[in-house]
Amino acid sequence: MTEAAAADTGITDAALTPVDVHLAAILDAIRPLAPAALPLAEAGGCVLAEDITARVALPSFDNSAMDGYAVRAADVASATERAPVTLPVTGEVTAGDPGAYALVPGTALRITTGAQLPSGADAVVPVEWTDGGAARVAIRQAPREGNAIRLAGGDAREGETLLERGTRLRPMQIAVAAAAGRDRVLVRPRPRVVVLSTGNELAEPGTPLVPGRIWDSNSYMIAAAAREAGCAACRHAIVPDDPAGVLPALEDQLTRADLLVTTGGVSMGGEHDVVKAALRRLGTVTFRKVAMQPGMPQGFGTVGEDRTPLFTLPGNPVSAYVSFQLFVRPAIGALQGDRALRLPVVRAALTAGVRSPAGRRSFLRGVLGNGTGADGRRRVTPLSGQGSHQIAALGRADALIVVPERAAQLSEGDEVDVLVLPA
Amino acid sequence: MTEAAAADTGITDAALTPVDVHLAAILDAIRPLAPAALPLAEAGGCVLAEDITARVALPSFDNSAMDGYAVRAADVASATERAPVTLPVTGEVTAGDPGAYALVPGTALRITTGAQLPSGADAVVPVEWTDGGAARVAIRQAPREGNAIRLAGGDAREGETLLERGTRLRPMQIAVAAAAGRDRVLVRPRPRVVVLSTGNELAEPGTPLVPGRIWDSNSYMIAAAAREAGCAACRHAIVPDDPAGVLPALEDQLTRADLLVTTGGVSMGGEHDVVKAALRRLGTVTFRKVAMQPGMPQGFGTVGEDRTPLFTLPGNPVSAYVSFQLFVRPAIGALQGDRALRLPVVRAALTAGVRSPAGRRSFLRGVLGNGTGADGRRRVTPLSGQGSHQIAALGRADALIVVPERAAQLSEGDEVDVLVLPA
Repeated sequence: MTEAAAADTGITDAALTPVDVHLAAILDAIRPLAPAALPLAEAGGCVLAEDITARVALPSFDNSAMDGYAVRAADVASATERAPVTLPVTGEVTAGDPGAYALVPGTALRITTGAQLPSGADAVVPVEWTDGGAARVAIRQAPREGNAIRLAGGDAREGETLLERGTRLRPMQIAVAAAAGRDRVLVRPRPRVVVLSTGNELAEPGTPLVPGRIWDSNSYMIAAAAREAGCAACRHAIVPDDPAGVLPALEDQLTRADLLVTTGGVSMGGEHDVVKAALRRLGTVTFRKVAMQPGMPQGFGTVGEDRTPLFTLPGNPVSAYVSFQLFVRPAIGALQGDRALRLPVVRAALTAGVRSPAGRRSFLRGVLGNGTGADGRRRVTPLSGQGSHQIAALGRADALIVVPERAAQLSEGDEVDVLVLPA
Repeated sequence: MTEAAAADTGITDAALTPVDVHLAAILDAIRPLAPAALPLAEAGGCVLAEDITARVALPSFDNSAMDGYAVRAADVASATERAPVTLPVTGEVTAGDPGAYALVPGTALRITTGAQLPSGADAVVPVEWTDGGAARVAIRQAPREGNAIRLAGGDAREGETLLERGTRLRPMQIAVAAAAGRDRVLVRPRPRVVVLSTGNELAEPGTPLVPGRIWDSNSYMIAAAAREAGCAACRHAIVPDDPAGVLPALEDQLTRADLLVTTGGVSMGGEHDVVKAALRRLGTVTFRKVAMQPGMPQGFGTVGEDRTPLFTLPGNPVSAYVSFQLFVRPAIGALQGDRALRLPVVRAALTAGVRSPAGRRSFLRGVLGNGTGADGRRRVTPLSGQGSHQIAALGRADALIVVPERAAQLSEGDEVDVLVLPA
């Protein structure tokens, strides 16, 4: 980093990499997964790798928007409450009826919602405007031409692009693809993620603790966060914090993973250089101190023949969680060809002052209300218990308060960027 | 509904049921699913049916928060940059080491992050304050007592309640349960949902269209929305809109479903009374006109021996989607013992005027920015294409604009409630 860049970001320690620089390097290194044609029913949450176009007009035929009577508007133009117009009913067209009906002038056909409009008809009289007659119908209100008719192509013209490549398939987009007749769609699939917790102090939950051990929580948390971010079922395990533990586990998982995440040991200083050196030999993995709090020690690279992205996140649970949301979540989006998988940012006023190490961007756990104060601004409350190992406060947080690199403290009422956590 | 209630809600047609009354009736009828003990790795998104308590203090032992040297603070109280204090290093304690170490006064022990604090030590000197020596270490800064030490019980005391029954297990809560040593948790499971699209006009996507038919989109959409709301994999199918089509399909699915949803036909008027009557015989299903737009015709009840909730939603895709978010989503929460599964509500100013039928609550598709205007208020933009069958506009919406029963139109700048759709 140049001195000018350092001055610009508010980062004073040249050994620290700005958050945005680290994220950009990650996104630069990631290639989207190969597209796959999935059954539509399994494609929810995946990202389109093709445009979806209307192969026929939608709807493909004029049809009734209501239950009622198909008529010629001119035949009932004089109808009023006091002087209804009565027409003979010559038949019924129901939804799904493939037959071709024609309306004889001066008559009516019963019609149900979604049924094809008979040729010759130019309006539908809702049943509520009539006496509901079967052989003859008395119509008490004159429809304008086109009343209660959905025209062919009213939803989409033939050839129209309905959904663009790169769109994430939410329920509404699934509906659009189904309405266009698609039972399979070309998508970037949900990435398969493998999470390894490194640390000789870690015990599997459910097993007894011996002195000096703690139960592993990171691998469970990061696997759950990855699923929440749209990944396929995630494998996770504890591995010893030495090359003989980490490397075989990583190599073993390479063929099963589109994304590898480790937490703990390997991202720390001094003592663990032997693991770092071993990881570097697997691929392009580099280790950096990023100008952030929590989460300063970060490792990222690609490993193996398929250049699978590998993250080494810090071992403190809060650091690991924040690092996941800032760096791994966008990487999951990039694997799917979706550059928009970021936490939403809102502006809010602090309800209490906060402190932060100058020169690093802080991400403090907070609670963001949906409401606004008397001044119309949203409010965010910093939580107590901001230690990197204190997961209890993390569990109450719904947002991360961003304190910029330049600021060492902020006061009540100061407006800040707030990252909204998935809910 | 009494006249007073009608006046209060702004509903003028006594034949219409207020939205909130319909929702309350639904929630009253639903019993939570039986709890099940699930492996923690499969419990993400489920709702706790037990309190999670700390069976031991967390952490269970004093440990180091950094890599460095365990010392007695008094031994190095005079250490400064200019006059470092040098101590002999008598050994190393690493994370996970189960041994019991004791610090000899006047000496130091190397220690790694997470390692058990030796007895006799009362401070950790970070490696950055030292020369990093192996046999002897020069300490350049005096730590206060307790420096870089995480005390036993600092995260949670033995017996402390960490997560309460009714909590939805997000990644952070999964981490808390793991950190407390739990490998299985008692939860209300993800409901299994079966969705049936009724309608003789419906064709399965991927099959050719014959005249008068449209491809089914509702069952795909509602199944995807149910999964998005936390349900287990959903089954869905098309059934003909007659008792011989609907009833066997429903009865067949009863044992496989915790929640049944139909869309189309059965919720309409007149023509379909035979299906309605048949459904009523299955259980307590009642049909109502709810004072809302879209989505007026609503059916709800419980069917079968297990009193499985059954929704009959309108057939127009937009009506079905809005009805799902307003009524089925909270019902999914109730099945899990979570009364909070509602769309979040925010206040925002309209960027354009809207019209709405008086006496009904309208839910207009809109786009809600995360930012605020110059006046500090959030903004919401109504989308064009508000027809109940127009799913293209629905696909661009991220919010539903609520127009109250009393209002027939609202103007640009008017402030409204906005329901935030899942993102």
